[in-house]
Amino acid sequence: MSTSFADRFPADPWILREVGLDHRELAQSESLFALGNGHIGVRANLDEGDPNGLSGTYLNSFYETRPLPYAEAGYGYPETGQTILNVTNGKIIRLLVDDEPLDLRYGQLISHERILDLRRGVLERHVEWESPSGTRVKLHTERLVSLARRSILAIRYRVEAIDTPLRIVLQSELVANEPLPTQSGDPRAAAAFKDALESITHDSEGNRAHLVHQTRSSGLRVAAAMGHQLDAAQACATEIIDHPDWARYTVSSTLAPGETTELVKFVAYGWSATRTTPTLRDQVDAGLISADQAGWDTIEQEQREHLEEFWSGADVEIDGPVEIQRAVRFGIFHAYQASARAEHRCIPAKGLTGPGYDGHAFWDTEMFVLPLLTATAPHAAGDALRWRADTLDAARDRARTLRLRGAAFPWRTIAGEECSGYWPAGTAALHINADIAAAAARHFWWTRDDDFARTVAVPLLVETARLWCSHGYDGPDGQFHLDGVTGPDEYTAVIDDNVFTNLMAKRNLTSAVELARQFAEDAQALDVDDDEIERWADCAARMAVPYNERLQVHEQDRGFTSREMWDFERSERNDEYPLLLNAPYFELYPKQVVKQSDLTLALHWCGSDFDAEHKARDFAYYEPLIVRDSSLSACTQAIVAAECGHLDLAADYLAEAALMDLHNLQHNARDGLHIASLAGGWLALVAGFGGMRDMGDQLIFRPQLPPGWTGLRFALRVGQQRLRVDIGPDTVRYSTDGDATIPVLHLSDDDEHELVEIKAGADVERPWTPVVPQTPTPTQPAGRPPFSLSDMAARS
Amino acid sequence: MSTSFADRFPADPWILREVGLDHRELAQSESLFALGNGHIGVRANLDEGDPNGLSGTYLNSFYETRPLPYAEAGYGYPETGQTILNVTNGKIIRLLVDDEPLDLRYGQLISHERILDLRRGVLERHVEWESPSGTRVKLHTERLVSLARRSILAIRYRVEAIDTPLRIVLQSELVANEPLPTQSGDPRAAAAFKDALESITHDSEGNRAHLVHQTRSSGLRVAAAMGHQLDAAQACATEIIDHPDWARYTVSSTLAPGETTELVKFVAYGWSATRTTPTLRDQVDAGLISADQAGWDTIEQEQREHLEEFWSGADVEIDGPVEIQRAVRFGIFHAYQASARAEHRCIPAKGLTGPGYDGHAFWDTEMFVLPLLTATAPHAAGDALRWRADTLDAARDRARTLRLRGAAFPWRTIAGEECSGYWPAGTAALHINADIAAAAARHFWWTRDDDFARTVAVPLLVETARLWCSHGYDGPDGQFHLDGVTGPDEYTAVIDDNVFTNLMAKRNLTSAVELARQFAEDAQALDVDDDEIERWADCAARMAVPYNERLQVHEQDRGFTSREMWDFERSERNDEYPLLLNAPYFELYPKQVVKQSDLTLALHWCGSDFDAEHKARDFAYYEPLIVRDSSLSACTQAIVAAECGHLDLAADYLAEAALMDLHNLQHNARDGLHIASLAGGWLALVAGFGGMRDMGDQLIFRPQLPPGWTGLRFALRVGQQRLRVDIGPDTVRYSTDGDATIPVLHLSDDDEHELVEIKAGADVERPWTPVVPQTPTPTQPAGRPPFSLSDMAARS
Repeated sequence: MSTSFADRFPADPWILREVGLDHRELAQSESLFALGNGHIGVRANLDEGDPNGLSGTYLNSFYETRPLPYAEAGYGYPETGQTILNVTNGKIIRLLVDDEPLDLRYGQLISHERILDLRRGVLERHVEWESPSGTRVKLHTERLVSLARRSILAIRYRVEAIDTPLRIVLQSELVANEPLPTQSGDPRAAAAFKDALESITHDSEGNRAHLVHQTRSSGLRVAAAMGHQLDAAQACATEIIDHPDWARYTVSSTLAPGETTELVKFVAYGWSATRTTPTLRDQVDAGLISADQAGWDTIEQEQREHLEEFWSGADVEIDGPVEIQRAVRFGIFHAYQASARAEHRCIPAKGLTGPGYDGHAFWDTEMFVLPLLTATAPHAAGDALRWRADTLDAARDRARTLRLRGAAFPWRTIAGEECSGYWPAGTAALHINADIAAAAARHFWWTRDDDFARTVAVPLLVETARLWCSHGYDGPDGQFHLDGVTGPDEYTAVIDDNVFTNLMAKRNLTSAVELARQFAEDAQALDVDDDEIERWADCAARMAVPYNERLQVHEQDRGFTSREMWDFERSERNDEYPLLLNAPYFELYPKQVVKQSDLTLALHWCGSDFDAEHKARDFAYYEPLIVRDSSLSACTQAIVAAECGHLDLAADYLAEAALMDLHNLQHNARDGLHIASLAGGWLALVAGFGGMRDMGDQLIFRPQLPPGWTGLRFALRVGQQRLRVDIGPDTVRYSTDGDATIPVLHLSDDDEHELVEIKAGADVERPWTPVVPQTPTPTQPAGRPPFSLSDMAARS
Repeated sequence: MSTSFADRFPADPWILREVGLDHRELAQSESLFALGNGHIGVRANLDEGDPNGLSGTYLNSFYETRPLPYAEAGYGYPETGQTILNVTNGKIIRLLVDDEPLDLRYGQLISHERILDLRRGVLERHVEWESPSGTRVKLHTERLVSLARRSILAIRYRVEAIDTPLRIVLQSELVANEPLPTQSGDPRAAAAFKDALESITHDSEGNRAHLVHQTRSSGLRVAAAMGHQLDAAQACATEIIDHPDWARYTVSSTLAPGETTELVKFVAYGWSATRTTPTLRDQVDAGLISADQAGWDTIEQEQREHLEEFWSGADVEIDGPVEIQRAVRFGIFHAYQASARAEHRCIPAKGLTGPGYDGHAFWDTEMFVLPLLTATAPHAAGDALRWRADTLDAARDRARTLRLRGAAFPWRTIAGEECSGYWPAGTAALHINADIAAAAARHFWWTRDDDFARTVAVPLLVETARLWCSHGYDGPDGQFHLDGVTGPDEYTAVIDDNVFTNLMAKRNLTSAVELARQFAEDAQALDVDDDEIERWADCAARMAVPYNERLQVHEQDRGFTSREMWDFERSERNDEYPLLLNAPYFELYPKQVVKQSDLTLALHWCGSDFDAEHKARDFAYYEPLIVRDSSLSACTQAIVAAECGHLDLAADYLAEAALMDLHNLQHNARDGLHIASLAGGWLALVAGFGGMRDMGDQLIFRPQLPPGWTGLRFALRVGQQRLRVDIGPDTVRYSTDGDATIPVLHLSDDDEHELVEIKAGADVERPWTPVVPQTPTPTQPAGRPPFSLSDMAARS
């Protein structure tokens, strides 16, 4: 039926190129080729608007509110949800050829190609089409969302006559309140909103138009403006008109064979909850005029330079399968697109690539995306954490509602208020607070930015530390317990002493102790005193970590390892994955079945709390239980598999994480990309095979290579300079380009470690040997082996 | 401000009499004086319709459906709710005196009295009123819902002129789609439905009219008809008219001082999902004509005779506080009203006295109401269990949805489908299946009705036994475990090995074994074989019962006793009861705080699984944790307190259970009565002080008396005859009126027991001494001592 993946997306280390157009996969490809800068996100809808899988243009944190319904109400249930809105669509340029609309569902598509070069940040499209009446035309369009100019989307649209003269009409539009397809009943898909935007004002003149709208309930205002530059072979007639929900710039002309008409379109976006309509209108007009003056070539050049600087401190090169090479770069690119210019706004789970999860940000940001960004794009990581700090008051309010001290950050949100409508997998997932604290502490360790520490890290750490102390209690066994929480594994909920939560809370508390002492004045401003610091240290020291003596493994939570085993064979036989769509929580919760890395996640991020023997045994115990019904699992399994010496398995998990969306492994890439899993591809390489650990003052590397690879090289930003790690078949070379010395703990085999000092011009080379596995390679649940490159080949 | 309870409801052993009218308490009194027969329920709205607290007329199982909303959907969540509807109101008779409507909010109320004699089953009302223009009038009205005629509501309305001649107009009505007040945000209050009834047909002729309606969504049809008999001193003009939503019979006349006009009104109700409109119309007309022919006096006489027969096998007499005497009879009366003619329909938690809980039936029926009915009104108990058996297919479907075998009965329902919108306190409360099984087994032991066993008990026991075997599992400790369930205490949920659930499941399994062997043919028809019976017996024998060795007490569920203690002092200080309205489940679930008797309930119903020492220690351990935020708690605490020798405490809990609604202790009597708590008053006396246990082949009594009481006498129906138990200060006398011998195990003190045979004409008298308590009297949570008669006196 459909062509193979390899035929559809021919392998290339830097370029995602799609050959042909599969109408059934339109929505997925709109997500894959989506462009964004963290402020604006545009799905790769075809220029002509129709057909589309799911039209989408998003502005970070521009949302509508809705009442959250409950069949049975309860104290403290969030009452208001926030849902990302599809805003005014500025991407549309329709083409009529001899009065026939170019619509790829009709006529004959001679060729179609889309190209996203990750170094250019421009989406190109090449089309040759024959209309139903037999007229041929060529299109070459380019689109970018500017990383240098936060408010600008730019399009260059070129149409060419081939063998006959053509009459053409181009219609460049702004369209608000586009009809959208009804979302599926899948709880993971976003809720739909119809006619969510009310017109405030609209205007047009010359080649420019703008529309200003507001939401009905959340009270946000959005302005969109478009302007045009025309380069035509023949005389053109133009017209501009505006209506409340749409504006249109029309160009009518003719083309002789071989002639082209080129239209450059700039679209500027702005939104605000507080600024007035005239201010907003002026803001987008200013952006437009500045872009107009710069012109396409300059803007494209800015884009390339911006990305060049980014990649110089972020790229990962592998001497291995080109498919993995491209997938990891694709992931890094999208993580950066989701965050580069977010500037005190959230990084949603789907970035700005689709409406999935209502556009909410989760723990994905801090646990999967920020480890990448802190190490490669620290300004973006810092801004994401500043967003969290900006929402501290909402988190303090939430803690008070929950009758706790400190701050309780929302499980899912856009603007800071809890939007989770199912508390056992929302409110109870208290670990998000420790995840945020860990990201803040880690960011400070990488950047040593005192201002960040004072204004962001200290408040976040102090208020989350308070949360743990007030939620936990001293048990009769003398340990400090955190009961009734939900860990990362959403197939158990409201359980006691989740190891991941407890160990992350422990880190949260000890980091709070450290920073409150280092920035004593800032801590005191938050009413921290010595007694409180003592209490944090004491709770951390006595944190409970459940352990099964008989099995000699850690328990994911208290009692986990003596629960009933899930019937994985039945689930394989009846094709029941993902289980959440085929079994009730009532059955899932009390059984040994794990949705996603949980104890395994603790083995990675809290690795210093486990010795190598337990890592090996724990990893082997949980592997047969993890069904990976979440995209936030494979990367962690790759990392711990590598640490335990199961390198083939690690390579498979790396492939699954990095190829999550390219291969649509969760079957919902249409709703947007899994940014955390994509960032997880980088993590699997850098923390997995690179063996990087960055949870303390000390950067650690324990280099290895996947079987069959001959090299792995990656760049990191440490303070103001870059650190390069170049792993060869037997040795690793560390180098830097800055003035400072970077101390690195190099682990060359299972017993040897050495502190090496990396200086500019004095590269350090050291040997490494692979980890010796202490257990046989663990198996996975029936029907759930990792996706691997060999699967991919089999599919092709 | 308001008069004392004792002034408002003067004490009387048989009569609930209300003096005066407190407009603020209108809704509560409408519940207290509600009449019903299990098929029809009418709230005690004033005859004239206005003012009312909450107008209500209900037909058992006449409901509307609605989609159940979820902020986040999940597999197996019930999608459709069922809500009891306020049907066509036939109670209304309006009076105009010299053109002024009698409305108690205006003019002057000289006197107002409502009287419910529990032996008559007639609600009387005496009113003397002076209109705003100074005209005085007397009303004497009577109302009954016939226990003998299932479809009939009858009203006798008499108006009398006092000192001046009067022009009067009487308007007797049927009104559909009455406007109702919006329900509160309290999750326990019912959802409102507006204009739920669509007119199908309406008609009137002579003194009769009828309206037929159907629901918009559930597809049920209801017919209501009224007819009249007029006895007037002066000539009357009459008129009848009908409209889609109302019909009116008008009488216009005059009265000289001392003269009366009497209007008797009969209302007949019928509903069906399947019968046609003409059939329904004929059905209600037939009921009406038959009532018309019988006349008021006959119908009233039937009512009195019906109740006399009922009380002869159900009454409880005490030589103690008259307030308790009345309250217990009031409770028995309402439990009987809720069930007498339900006939294969449910017994809702509120009976048919109000819209609370959407009119749903819960486990209340089997665990609190049926113990009373099986022993005093076996036909009603049998019918309630036949209703459960009728819904077996829906329960089998539900089990399949939950991927379990057998049947999973709904936590809340009207027609059999699960309507709970919060699964941790609905679906997970699997114990309802064992509760139903226990009621069925118990009913068979009392009645020895083989037909009931074959058609009801065996199917219920077999399918619920299957459920337990498929949900539970064999743990590594060799025990059989039931994980992830919710017990009666809704302040913990989705926990493991809830003792109550496990021991009830054990009884379910052993009863299934017994009955499947006794009725082997019927069991085989359900595909039961020897292997399956063996498996039931084996699971029962190995059922886990968590126990804390250090504290020497049983754990409510695995790990319960090592959890953090709730801060009861804080809750008292901040007036936080009921906690569910002031704290999140997130905080409640993992702590030691108990909403209602749970382990204590096991001590009662599964008492043979505990020795006396553990009963005493367990009771003492849990008493300080039970906040009684549910009305289903005090009666059980009374029973176990009595068994443990804490007789003062038992008497207090008895008072709380019996006075639950009379004193509006849960603050929501407006939404309907707590039928289970009212039945619990009987349980507290009979199982508490009478020491009756009826969980096996053997009836047991361990008689005691509350301090200060001199006697307690009660009647029970055993098979076809009555057993009377007459407890005096030192001895108990057993007697019976039938031919059969009733064996009774009499426990005279903590060590002595004797099997005595009770025969007609040969009363048996035996001594008793009070239980010697093994612990000091336990205390309750701060701020939550039991309501007691001395509290009541203090309030007065």
